[in-house]
Amino acid sequence: MPMPDLPRPDEDMLQRHLREVRQLLAKQQLVEEVTRRQRMPHQRLVENITHRQNLARLQRKLDRLHPADIAYILETLPLDERLYVWDLVKADKDGDILLEVSDAVRPSLLETMDRDELKTAAEALDADELADLIPDLPTDVAQEVLTALDQREQAQVREAMSYAEGTVGALMDFDLVKVREDVTLEVVARYLRRFDALPDHTDKLFVVDRDERLRGILTLEALLINEPETPVSDVMQASELILFRAEDEARQAAHAFERYDLVSVPVVDKQRRLVARLTVSDVVDYIQEENEAEILSQAGLEEEEDIFAPILRSVKNRWAWLAINLVTAVIASRVINLFEDSIAQLVALAALMPIVAGIGGNAGNQTITMIVRAIAMGQVQPSAWRRLMVKELGVALINGLVWGGVIGVFAGVVYQNLPLGVVMVAAMALNLLLAATAGVLIPLLRQRLGRDPALGSSVMITALTDSGGFFIFLGLATLFLL
Amino acid sequence: MPMPDLPRPDEDMLQRHLREVRQLLAKQQLVEEVTRRQRMPHQRLVENITHRQNLARLQRKLDRLHPADIAYILETLPLDERLYVWDLVKADKDGDILLEVSDAVRPSLLETMDRDELKTAAEALDADELADLIPDLPTDVAQEVLTALDQREQAQVREAMSYAEGTVGALMDFDLVKVREDVTLEVVARYLRRFDALPDHTDKLFVVDRDERLRGILTLEALLINEPETPVSDVMQASELILFRAEDEARQAAHAFERYDLVSVPVVDKQRRLVARLTVSDVVDYIQEENEAEILSQAGLEEEEDIFAPILRSVKNRWAWLAINLVTAVIASRVINLFEDSIAQLVALAALMPIVAGIGGNAGNQTITMIVRAIAMGQVQPSAWRRLMVKELGVALINGLVWGGVIGVFAGVVYQNLPLGVVMVAAMALNLLLAATAGVLIPLLRQRLGRDPALGSSVMITALTDSGGFFIFLGLATLFLL
Repeated sequence: MPMPDLPRPDEDMLQRHLREVRQLLAKQQLVEEVTRRQRMPHQRLVENITHRQNLARLQRKLDRLHPADIAYILETLPLDERLYVWDLVKADKDGDILLEVSDAVRPSLLETMDRDELKTAAEALDADELADLIPDLPTDVAQEVLTALDQREQAQVREAMSYAEGTVGALMDFDLVKVREDVTLEVVARYLRRFDALPDHTDKLFVVDRDERLRGILTLEALLINEPETPVSDVMQASELILFRAEDEARQAAHAFERYDLVSVPVVDKQRRLVARLTVSDVVDYIQEENEAEILSQAGLEEEEDIFAPILRSVKNRWAWLAINLVTAVIASRVINLFEDSIAQLVALAALMPIVAGIGGNAGNQTITMIVRAIAMGQVQPSAWRRLMVKELGVALINGLVWGGVIGVFAGVVYQNLPLGVVMVAAMALNLLLAATAGVLIPLLRQRLGRDPALGSSVMITALTDSGGFFIFLGLATLFLL
Repeated sequence: MPMPDLPRPDEDMLQRHLREVRQLLAKQQLVEEVTRRQRMPHQRLVENITHRQNLARLQRKLDRLHPADIAYILETLPLDERLYVWDLVKADKDGDILLEVSDAVRPSLLETMDRDELKTAAEALDADELADLIPDLPTDVAQEVLTALDQREQAQVREAMSYAEGTVGALMDFDLVKVREDVTLEVVARYLRRFDALPDHTDKLFVVDRDERLRGILTLEALLINEPETPVSDVMQASELILFRAEDEARQAAHAFERYDLVSVPVVDKQRRLVARLTVSDVVDYIQEENEAEILSQAGLEEEEDIFAPILRSVKNRWAWLAINLVTAVIASRVINLFEDSIAQLVALAALMPIVAGIGGNAGNQTITMIVRAIAMGQVQPSAWRRLMVKELGVALINGLVWGGVIGVFAGVVYQNLPLGVVMVAAMALNLLLAATAGVLIPLLRQRLGRDPALGSSVMITALTDSGGFFIFLGLATLFLL
C-alpha cells in the first residue's frame, strides 16, 4: 500500500509556505480594513477575535519555518507586508534571518529594529556569523555586542572581520572539534558522546598537538570503520593534507572544493596552527554570490537589487553603467559625425552602418567571454596567446566573409549598388578581425596588469566595435564609393 | 620554531603541477627533435636514455596527481601535448578523468582510445558515473560494458540514464549505507566497522524497513554523540525529512542544498522506497555548470568551447547567435531606411540615432536581468507585476529625463539646434520607457507560457530597443524638425 505523500521542503513546499503566509496576511488586511471602515477604535481592533486568531495562526506558521525560508518569504513580500511579517518573527531567529536575507533587503529589516532587538539578534550568532553582521549595525550597538563576548570569541570576531571579502578568512568558521593523536578511537568516541551536538558539516576531526599545530585529520569515516582500540595516529591522514590559509583567495578555495569534492578543510596560520575551518556550505554561498555578481555586472547593475526597492535606490544602482555607456555612445556618434558629408551623399550608409557595428559587438563579446572564462579557470598560459589569437582571427575571418557576404548581397540588391555590397563585406570582415584582436588582447593585458579580466569587458569591447565599425565602414565607403 | 610550509593543493599548487608537466614535455620534445635531426631510427630514439628517464619522470608525476588535476592539465594543454599526456595516464584513472574533463574536451580524448581502453575506463566507474559517460561511447562498446555489469548495477545505470538532464535523477548516486530502526547504535557501529570505506559524503545513514521504504535518517552525529545502547529508532530523524524524487528539478534541489546547508539527501520513489541519494558535490558541479551555461548564452555562445578547438568547430558554436543578431540588425536597418529622406535633410540624425538605441539597450538589459534573476529565485509572484512595472517605469522616466537631458544639451549645443536637443530628450525618455515595459513583460510572459525566461532575453530586448529607438527618434525628428 503506497504511503501518503509527505510534503517535501523543496521549492513547491516553499511556494506553499509563501501562499499560506500571504493568505493570512490578506485576511489580516481585510479585518483591519473592515474595522477601519466601521471606525472602531484601535483598542477594539486588537481585541477583535478574528484578528487575534488570524494573527496567532500566522505566528505559529512563522515559528515552524526554517530561518532561510522566512528570509525567502521576506524578500518576496512588498515592503509593507515584509515589515508586518518581520515584526511577528520570534526574536531568537532574527540573527539567522538577517544573515540569510540578501544584502539588498537586509537594510529594510535593520531599519525597523531598536537597539535591544539588534543586540538580542546579534548575541544569538556564532563569531564568524557575527563578523558578517557587525558592519551593518550602528557602531555603538556593535561595540556593546562585542564587549559582551568572552575574550576568545572577541578575538575570533576581530580576526574574521580583519580579512577582506573574497578571502578564506572572511568565510571560515571557528566551530570545530580537536583531538590528540596519542589517544585511541575509543577515547575519541567517548569524548564525542559528551557533546550535545557536533558543529555543522563535521566530516572530520582535527588532530593537533599541544601548541595547536595541525598534525593531521581524522575523518569520521576513519573513526567509524576502524577498531576502537586503534590509536588516532594510526588512522589519521597526516600527509598531502588539503589546507588553507585565512589570507588565501576564496575563489581558489572554491575551485579546490569543487575539484576534490570536499566538505570541510582546516584553515591554518603560518606556523601551521589550526585557526578555523572552511565548510562546503560557506563555499556554496560564495559561489552563488560570485556568479550572481558576474551576471549582474555583465548587465550593468552595480549590485543585487531588492525588487521592491524605492525608485531612487534603483536609479542609483544603475546610473554608473548608463553614464559609461553614454560616453562611449557619444564617442561613436562623433565618429559618425566625421563622415557627415559621405552620409549626405549616400543615405544608405546610415541605414547599413548599425549592422556592421552590431555584428562586431556580438562577435567581440563571444570572444572576450570565452577568453575571460578560460583565464578564470586558469586555462590560459601566457605562452598560449599567440595560438589563441590565430584561432580567433581565423574564426573572425570565416564569420566576416560568410555573414559579410550575406549582408553584402542584401545591400547590393536592396540598394541596387554592387560596390556598396563589396564595401559591406570588407567592413564586416575588418570589424570582426578588430573584435577578435581586442577580444583576446584586452583580457590578457588586464590579466598581466593584475586587474580583473572580466570587469567591464563587455562595455569596452562594444565601445570599440561600435566606434571601430562606424569608422571602418564609413571610411571605406568614403574612399571607394564617393 | 615554525614548521616548513607544506605544499597546499590549491590553485598555486595546481599551477606548479602544470608547469612541471610542461617542462617535462618541452624537454621531451627537444630530445625527439634532436633525435630526428640526427636521423636516428625510431628504435634508437625509444632506447635513448635521456628520453626514457624523462618519460619516467613525467609518468611518475602523473601517477601522483588527482584525476581532477590531470583533467585540468589536459584542458590547458594544446591538442598535441594533451594527447601525449593522455597516453601516459594510467588506465585505471582514465574513467575518472573522462568524467572530470569538460564536455568540450572529452571528445578529443575519447577519439584516441580503442575499444579495450574504453571498456577498461568504463568498468572502473560507479553506476551513476557510467550513466554520464555511456552516451559518449560508441554503441557497441556501451553495450558490452553494460552486459558485463551485474543485474542490480545494470538496472541502476538504466535508471540513471532514464532521467533527463536537469533532474535529480541525472545527478543522484546509488552508493549509500542502509540500516534498520530496531537495532542499537552499537550494532550500527559494528556493522560500519565491516566496511573498508564509506561512500563519499556519508553524513547520514538511511533507515529503511524490509520493503526498502525510508523510515528516517540516522546522522553520523546522532550515531556518535549518543550512547551505544540507544536504539536507532530513538535518535533517528523521522519527521520533516528533506527528500527528493528522481524526477524533481535539479534546480530546486540545488536551492534546497543552498538554503538548508545540506551534505546528502535521500531520493525516494512514489512509494517512498529509497532509490539513491543526492550529495553536495554533485550539486556544486551542477550549480557551476548552470552558471557557466548562463554566462555563455548571454554572450551568444551555444556551449562551452575547448579553447584549442579547431576553427571550424568554434565557428559552429557561434554562428547561431550571430545569425539571429544579423536578422535583428537588418530589421533595425530597414527601420532607418524608412526615414531616408529625413536623414538626407538633417545628417545629424544619423550621428545621434545610435545613442538613443544604445542607451535603450543598456537600460533594457538592466531591467530584464533583474526581473529574470528575481523570477529564477522565485521572488516574483504573478500579483507583483503591476508594482514592478510602476517601479521600472519610474526608474526609466528619471533616467530618460536625466540622461536624455544631458545628451539633449550636448546635441543642441554641438549642432546649434535647440529643437533637435528637445527631440533627443523626448526620444531617450520614450525609448527607456519602452525598454522598461519590455524588460518586465517579456520575462513575465515567457514565464506564464512555461518557457525559460532567461533564454535569449538580452537579444530580444536589444532588438526591440534598437529598432524602437531608431523609429522613435527618427519619427519624432520627421514630425517636429522637418
